Amino acid sequence: MDDILEETEIVRIILRVLGQPKPPFAPIGDDVAMMSYGNKSLVMKTDMFVGSTDLPPGMNLFHAARKTVVMCVSDFAAKGIRPTAAMISLGLKRPIHKNDIVQLAKGFRAAAKEFGLSIIGGDTNESNDLVIDCAMFGFGRRPILRSGAKPGDIVIVTGPFGYTSLGLHILLENPKTVTNSKLTAFERECKNLVLLPRPQLALGLALTKAKLLNASMDSSDGLALSLWELAERSNVEINIVRPPETEETRSYAEKYGLGLEEVVFHGGEEYEIVATLPPENWERARKIAQRLDSNLIPIGKVVKGSPTVRRITHDRSWTLEKRGWTHFSRHSADC
Amino acid sequence: MDDILEETEIVRIILRVLGQPKPPFAPIGDDVAMMSYGNKSLVMKTDMFVGSTDLPPGMNLFHAARKTVVMCVSDFAAKGIRPTAAMISLGLKRPIHKNDIVQLAKGFRAAAKEFGLSIIGGDTNESNDLVIDCAMFGFGRRPILRSGAKPGDIVIVTGPFGYTSLGLHILLENPKTVTNSKLTAFERECKNLVLLPRPQLALGLALTKAKLLNASMDSSDGLALSLWELAERSNVEINIVRPPETEETRSYAEKYGLGLEEVVFHGGEEYEIVATLPPENWERARKIAQRLDSNLIPIGKVVKGSPTVRRITHDRSWTLEKRGWTHFSRHSADC
Repeated sequence: MDDILEETEIVRIILRVLGQPKPPFAPIGDDVAMMSYGNKSLVMKTDMFVGSTDLPPGMNLFHAARKTVVMCVSDFAAKGIRPTAAMISLGLKRPIHKNDIVQLAKGFRAAAKEFGLSIIGGDTNESNDLVIDCAMFGFGRRPILRSGAKPGDIVIVTGPFGYTSLGLHILLENPKTVTNSKLTAFERECKNLVLLPRPQLALGLALTKAKLLNASMDSSDGLALSLWELAERSNVEINIVRPPETEETRSYAEKYGLGLEEVVFHGGEEYEIVATLPPENWERARKIAQRLDSNLIPIGKVVKGSPTVRRITHDRSWTLEKRGWTHFSRHSADC
Repeated sequence: MDDILEETEIVRIILRVLGQPKPPFAPIGDDVAMMSYGNKSLVMKTDMFVGSTDLPPGMNLFHAARKTVVMCVSDFAAKGIRPTAAMISLGLKRPIHKNDIVQLAKGFRAAAKEFGLSIIGGDTNESNDLVIDCAMFGFGRRPILRSGAKPGDIVIVTGPFGYTSLGLHILLENPKTVTNSKLTAFERECKNLVLLPRPQLALGLALTKAKLLNASMDSSDGLALSLWELAERSNVEINIVRPPETEETRSYAEKYGLGLEEVVFHGGEEYEIVATLPPENWERARKIAQRLDSNLIPIGKVVKGSPTVRRITHDRSWTLEKRGWTHFSRHSADC
């Protein structure tokens, strides 16, 4: 049993030994690490990409390098903090070809340009697995926490969910014949979101600058886990009445016998923002999203109650399972 | 040939694609990354420990975790910057036992306490190799660079060299029977320096605070490479007249047929400071070291000339080979 420790259990064990950091540092457990000084914050995040678990067929080293930066950027987006710079640590498997290094470097360059940050240092090593670790920092006022959701808030997401699960399904089903010409436009979009994920940095910064959000987090562990996390940290109940699914997701899931709710709620690797805001802020938020040509989808609301996530349809309701894609348990490996 | 890319070549390729970061960031190439704001600096460092290459027999997970933090602390020590906090990314190999996590956490806790820093966040992942990545930051005035050595300066180191090479030799020779009782006091010290390296944080901070150093760097890539690096970055010649060897190093090397100069100059993993200072600062520096019960050993001097490192004895002189222990070439694997 010892070898099926889940990520959350590992973190719990480490925190039990280490204890939580004390002020001026924020406790461990939000999307990012934080240090306050005066009325400002230094915000930091580290995220690791591992070849043996994170590199599906069809993803090359350019994609992997860019995605590692995206993984951090998405957390900054959810907190409303502009990332300033990043350091990259590499673990490289022999044989190490010059072209592989060039591909990695081009991925970092693309990400740096796209998100307006600098790569300012790093470390290279030999290892038995491809490892790309990104440590990012930025400065800001007060980051939006996971714990600020209030009864009455609307729950929003910044895009439809399930596309990356389907994209992974497409890449895993038949990696060799997946050329763009054989895919529908929707399938291409799903595949592209796996290879070239788009974190919601501009939208996250704009919504935060306008002070519209009460709580916010990145959704990369899956929608269900993100909603549970918001509910538990904010000590509220969340009711989901309109899952962020699309007609295309529905037909694809049906065609391949995949559970639609499974795909939408328990997939993962969506680099969207899940947030809550007071109803009176909705119209302004919607306009900001429109101006940025971005999605903002209301999916439910926050109510008083013990921390839980309820899924509510026109004729029934149930508690949404608290599980998602995690590195150590991989519940979603079947989708 | 492609698979024997050395670490320096990999960094060169990456920098060719990425370009150097622009102000307020320092160019990549010193011990740490830096961002200046006003007359202050935010200093950062990331360093990765990899199980398959960095974990000799006899080193457990407590040692590995603590050492990863030490690897960063040593760079801060050489720059004269007090580390504030660190984030840790883990890549863990299955099976993952609870006790392994506890050992890692205890290693981080020990290091945090020892060097007065906080662990404020991190990331855990599954991988095919043990990976511990530490991203550390701290604040300060102006860090001491590698490029400040001036003709006339004395070259100093903060301890004898070669002990860790010999410690590794001891651990690799006969790992199963290496119990402390069978080792001499010197051999125990060598072994301990591999398992529980001691970076020179207090000394580095004190020498910097007193503004005594012109140039400084961490020596973990080996003494020869560190001296070459100082010479090249400062555009000076360095003459080494008194290698930091001890009588014990000499006898051990002789006993086992190891080249003494090889062990002292081309080993590595010594977490000492290699620095230069004007002769008029020597006496104050010596007293500071004495007060801290630390070593400060003059080993040569800086002279005008094209960037090179000369080894000078009473009857001959030669250019010190520019090589050391590196992850990708492992010249020192024989010692």
